Amino acid sequence: MQKDFTVTPWEVKGKINYDKLIKEFGLEALKNLPKVFNDLLLMRRNIVFAHRDFNRIVGCIQNKKQFVMMTGLMPSGKFHFGHKVVADQIIFYQELGAKIYLAVADIEAYNSRNPNMQELRKIAIEEYLLNYMALGLNIKKCDFYFQSARSKQAEKSNSYYRLANMLARHATFNEYKSIYGEISPGKMISSLIQASDMLHPQLPEFEGPIPVLVPVGADQDPHLRLARDLSQRIKEFKFIQLSSTYNKFLPALNGDKMSSSDPTSYIALTDSPEEASNKIKKYAFSGGQPTIEEHKKKGGNPDIDSSFQLLKYGLEENDKKLEDIYNDYKSGSLLTSELKQIVIEKLEKFLIQHQKKRGIAKKQIDKLI
Amino acid sequence: MQKDFTVTPWEVKGKINYDKLIKEFGLEALKNLPKVFNDLLLMRRNIVFAHRDFNRIVGCIQNKKQFVMMTGLMPSGKFHFGHKVVADQIIFYQELGAKIYLAVADIEAYNSRNPNMQELRKIAIEEYLLNYMALGLNIKKCDFYFQSARSKQAEKSNSYYRLANMLARHATFNEYKSIYGEISPGKMISSLIQASDMLHPQLPEFEGPIPVLVPVGADQDPHLRLARDLSQRIKEFKFIQLSSTYNKFLPALNGDKMSSSDPTSYIALTDSPEEASNKIKKYAFSGGQPTIEEHKKKGGNPDIDSSFQLLKYGLEENDKKLEDIYNDYKSGSLLTSELKQIVIEKLEKFLIQHQKKRGIAKKQIDKLI
Repeated sequence: MQKDFTVTPWEVKGKINYDKLIKEFGLEALKNLPKVFNDLLLMRRNIVFAHRDFNRIVGCIQNKKQFVMMTGLMPSGKFHFGHKVVADQIIFYQELGAKIYLAVADIEAYNSRNPNMQELRKIAIEEYLLNYMALGLNIKKCDFYFQSARSKQAEKSNSYYRLANMLARHATFNEYKSIYGEISPGKMISSLIQASDMLHPQLPEFEGPIPVLVPVGADQDPHLRLARDLSQRIKEFKFIQLSSTYNKFLPALNGDKMSSSDPTSYIALTDSPEEASNKIKKYAFSGGQPTIEEHKKKGGNPDIDSSFQLLKYGLEENDKKLEDIYNDYKSGSLLTSELKQIVIEKLEKFLIQHQKKRGIAKKQIDKLI
Repeated sequence: MQKDFTVTPWEVKGKINYDKLIKEFGLEALKNLPKVFNDLLLMRRNIVFAHRDFNRIVGCIQNKKQFVMMTGLMPSGKFHFGHKVVADQIIFYQELGAKIYLAVADIEAYNSRNPNMQELRKIAIEEYLLNYMALGLNIKKCDFYFQSARSKQAEKSNSYYRLANMLARHATFNEYKSIYGEISPGKMISSLIQASDMLHPQLPEFEGPIPVLVPVGADQDPHLRLARDLSQRIKEFKFIQLSSTYNKFLPALNGDKMSSSDPTSYIALTDSPEEASNKIKKYAFSGGQPTIEEHKKKGGNPDIDSSFQLLKYGLEENDKKLEDIYNDYKSGSLLTSELKQIVIEKLEKFLIQHQKKRGIAKKQIDKLI
């Protein structure tokens, strides 16, 4: 059977069928969540769509028990609206009172992408951290770290790397092949470090045994599967099994493949309002019909329309308004140019405000890391 | 062609032909060394028999330039006379003024042998460190560390593990297979950590670029080959190529296979004088003839005699006396029982003194690590 999509930590391509993905990966669909999750637009709109052992975290929230939210960022390319999906979740969980662990996956980036550690550091701070802060992340209340330099406390660094190195004993090559397909020494190291990223909050030098939620893009599940399996084999530590949620991917702006080397495939949060509006006008893949007449008659398809996706993924926070736009576009009463104009206005407003906040964050950053 | 011996980091067996080993591994024989090395019995007697790039270290010694001596110990089983061979070299280089880096390979031991970190720590200290100190190592002037907890300074720990993790990018699986044969994730991690053990003294957080000598048993050369190759591929650091020397293995006391699970295969430095003398009498493999008459007529073979090897590897420090014993045994004028008696007396004297020093070391150890 030929697959029409691929979702691995190193490649996401094709038109993804998320129901198939749930079955293939062995995930569970997210449903019947308590009210508090209505505050997270991404959950309301089923963009965060699946989970493993999320009930443990729901229980913590309901019983006001402490939990950790851990996730990572890959310092590569520009920070765009696709990346914002995870950032929004981090901020949501921080506001809920979770302890936030945030890893810059610079060892993974070095081993699989860009072998320039200084550049990776620069990208992590300027592209990711500053945008996270501008979006509302309180970095002072985060355990933010680089995989290449875990902590300023030796005990913590030692225990984090020790765990990664000890986990190796409990993995086999066949397991790697079945989880990842092709595997190189660099990728193997990355996956062990990532397992330690997810598990080390439970070490005695950190929080001790505690529920840990890892919200990630669906492509990261192989790392979760490995970390979950290894965590139950290593007898030195009593790890509570990891919880995770999975989000869908914001489609490429141009309807093609999301790629950091192709600026027409995304809108970066550092794009100027003019650039952004230009990209929407010129490159945003449209679900509309070729002519206005035809559009009014047959209606457009918001589900494949890139501009509409930007609204759905967060630019339009009001569900009712989003629904109206959806219906109007589908019926044909809202034209593609009108839809784009709505998005452009929202986008310009957002970017101006965001970039102001980013400027403020930039002034604070040197003191913070 | 069938091989009659095997020398890998995970197995040493058979009757080793060291000339063949030099060719097979691509080593160079040690010769024409400056006088200072006459002080090291192991070099005078060609027990340290081969090297890679040792001229760089010779140059440092002749020009009174600083260099590092780095080596590791595997915390496994009892510390016996076979292990003393590396210890003697460490002490020699410390007295020569080298900076000493000494790693406890507990990550390697965990990944390939004993998955009990606490036990490994205990063995490292009680079996290895205390005996090193009793033999004359000044532990205060050593950078002694565990692979699982590099340093009490976070910067140092971070840079040591960062290097191991970055080296992965520069290795391939095919390379691993050709260097090590069978390879598991645990062994792969071990070899990367070991490469970092050998290379990290040259990092900016440690000494910066500096010649590093790694004196090891011949079985460790695969680790050296990998570390040497990777060091020249990673462009972030300018590593001076590693130097190494290789020692032969003290044969098993019982003439069989050296094994920590078989106490008749070695004499431990913590064996009581009675135990030791008993082992020599009962188990030491003899190069003598079956009867006294035959021995007097044909003579013995000191080269395969385990008792004689103990003298050669250090119990008899005087070369002239050793030669006399060799010749007398070979001619048959020295009987096996007489040879054993010489060894027993030397051994008892050594062990009594050594264990006294070890007792003193034990009192100091808690303050030191």
